[in-house]
Amino acid sequence: MQHNLENTIALLGRTPAALDALLRDLPEAWTRQNEGENTWSAFDVVGHLIHGERTDWMPRARIILQFGETRAFEPFDRWAQMRESEGKSFGQLLDEFARLRSVNLAGLRALNLRPEDFQRRGRHPALGVVTLSELLATWAAHDLTHLHQISRIMAHQYREAVGPWTSFLGVMQCAGHSS
Amino acid sequence: MQHNLENTIALLGRTPAALDALLRDLPEAWTRQNEGENTWSAFDVVGHLIHGERTDWMPRARIILQFGETRAFEPFDRWAQMRESEGKSFGQLLDEFARLRSVNLAGLRALNLRPEDFQRRGRHPALGVVTLSELLATWAAHDLTHLHQISRIMAHQYREAVGPWTSFLGVMQCAGHSS
Repeated sequence: MQHNLENTIALLGRTPAALDALLRDLPEAWTRQNEGENTWSAFDVVGHLIHGERTDWMPRARIILQFGETRAFEPFDRWAQMRESEGKSFGQLLDEFARLRSVNLAGLRALNLRPEDFQRRGRHPALGVVTLSELLATWAAHDLTHLHQISRIMAHQYREAVGPWTSFLGVMQCAGHSS
Repeated sequence: MQHNLENTIALLGRTPAALDALLRDLPEAWTRQNEGENTWSAFDVVGHLIHGERTDWMPRARIILQFGETRAFEPFDRWAQMRESEGKSFGQLLDEFARLRSVNLAGLRALNLRPEDFQRRGRHPALGVVTLSELLATWAAHDLTHLHQISRIMAHQYREAVGPWTSFLGVMQCAGHSS
């Protein structure tokens, strides 16, 4: 489908509650383990989502609306959460993600975007010219890429435990595709 | 980690609420679309999870405990939900999944499994000898493989909408690995 603002908001609005229902008070054997060196745990992923709410999606939307292609977005720090999440509980991270997402969706609605705004162009530091529509679609798809990743990280913890069933479980064959 | 009954139950108990938070009342542009011919939508996946609650996990656990390797499990019908979900709303499916999962987890706890029970052996019609421990671990990992799949199916709907960002989104590179 083409990008559709209401569909994007419907998904973005549900992710915090979905992650909360899945992860809050889940044993750390699931949530604090990763897939090996230089990979993330579910805890790290939620920290990354928080960092995105703070520095990526709405700040970039505002740069597009204010500066167009004349000002490139700030590069995104994919490891910022390792510092920012330190000492926090998973419950605190889930609360923080839900709060920031709610604030950002209120901010998005308050922009009162008109149909022609979605084709406004900005400049990504690596990808070059992108549109506001692509940015907003990516915000939603980014939630899904990390839900996909969290499922895979957690499944990995039972890689040996499932025995011969591993060949029937698609998630156990997933190579990660970078995230 | 090794299979751990409490960790398995912790995860199995959360999946219905996580899927409910993600999918209930989400626009059908997300939930009723699939990835192409002979693939499933999120609606189909939840129907498949329901069929598993009815015919797979606890029935197989009981076959292991009662018959050991002498009686193979019934083969699982991976397309049963296409018939069984027909005419139902997504809300009805989510309710049904939550109800059946709750009943099954109560049944699992009521088995009062002792440590030695987890190594009891059964016979899978395709995989051969499996243990009760492997069956229970697979029940949890199977939830995760389908959460992984649902994330991918939904991300697929925005494959074009994200424009050049598709190269940064791992989920868009996921080949499915059979489910």
